[in-house]
Amino acid sequence: MTARRVYLAGPDVFLPEAEAWLARKKAICAAEGFSPVSPLDPLPGEPEAWSALPEWRRIALRNEAHIRGSDALIANLTPFRGPSADPGTVYEIGFMRALGRPVFGYATTALPFVERTLNCLGLSREGVVSDAEGMAIEAFGLFDNLMIEGGIIGSGGVLVVEDCQAAGRWTDLRVFERCVREAARILA
Amino acid sequence: MTARRVYLAGPDVFLPEAEAWLARKKAICAAEGFSPVSPLDPLPGEPEAWSALPEWRRIALRNEAHIRGSDALIANLTPFRGPSADPGTVYEIGFMRALGRPVFGYATTALPFVERTLNCLGLSREGVVSDAEGMAIEAFGLFDNLMIEGGIIGSGGVLVVEDCQAAGRWTDLRVFERCVREAARILA
Repeated sequence: MTARRVYLAGPDVFLPEAEAWLARKKAICAAEGFSPVSPLDPLPGEPEAWSALPEWRRIALRNEAHIRGSDALIANLTPFRGPSADPGTVYEIGFMRALGRPVFGYATTALPFVERTLNCLGLSREGVVSDAEGMAIEAFGLFDNLMIEGGIIGSGGVLVVEDCQAAGRWTDLRVFERCVREAARILA
Repeated sequence: MTARRVYLAGPDVFLPEAEAWLARKKAICAAEGFSPVSPLDPLPGEPEAWSALPEWRRIALRNEAHIRGSDALIANLTPFRGPSADPGTVYEIGFMRALGRPVFGYATTALPFVERTLNCLGLSREGVVSDAEGMAIEAFGLFDNLMIEGGIIGSGGVLVVEDCQAAGRWTDLRVFERCVREAARILA
């Protein structure tokens, strides 16, 4: 059987020495029998016409093509500069979900979405249901916005979260490893 | 010709009296010849089995079905509790983009992503390329994460941003109106 291609979504691309970092994540995937794809990988057969586009458009098109070429997606949902996950990662989860393929998520914190939102807004928990602008605070007891968790669960994937930051919240790989093992088990 | 169905993505669902608010946005769409769909609309023919699911899962599945049933999507990208758009909205943009249909976006601020990110991090502009955790700051001169703008442009849609907050950043409809007119012109 050909190894399943799994796309590694996440703000890991913003880390220093991201290429080397993603090589470590790839090695963990390979050990579980996956063929991992990173957002930094070149796209085989990339259309010649793309060379005329600005870099950001090439990156966007390449990542979309990588996702289309993958069988599953594993997303780093560790909160990024606010209560929620990195928006590029969230976009990619929605994209893969529309393709009808399994999406898995993980995070190195287990603090619920509602608490992270209140912390970000500087509000205390007791009875707060909306922010200073009157916008409701989503409180379904989930880890992030309901579309994200709904998409993951609806796709047949799982969300693995754990306060596990021995090596730092971006560089502790234990929750990622658990998530990859879960993905391997579910997709077996 | 049947009117094109357009899905109204955005954190508008969190506004007080969201139903009445979305009725106003729908009226603007209808005036341009669209058949608007709101995330709060019931889903015709909703599967009976969904009634056993928790509310958040029903909402997620219903919104995905609404998007699949629409010809285009118009997203409110006004920054939401951080430098970026509401994550539910970003998920929906990625979802529609994967379906290959046009996505339009608008926001009531024109401040670029890099400046909003630096403001959020409490950093000054001069020479800053990464945050306190060493994570790079995306600086392509775009309005938000490159996947969002790449998806919109790649889909044939446009992004309309303008500092236009006479009635408040969530309740000024002028940029939305411009975006709906642009969508009508492009899809004509």
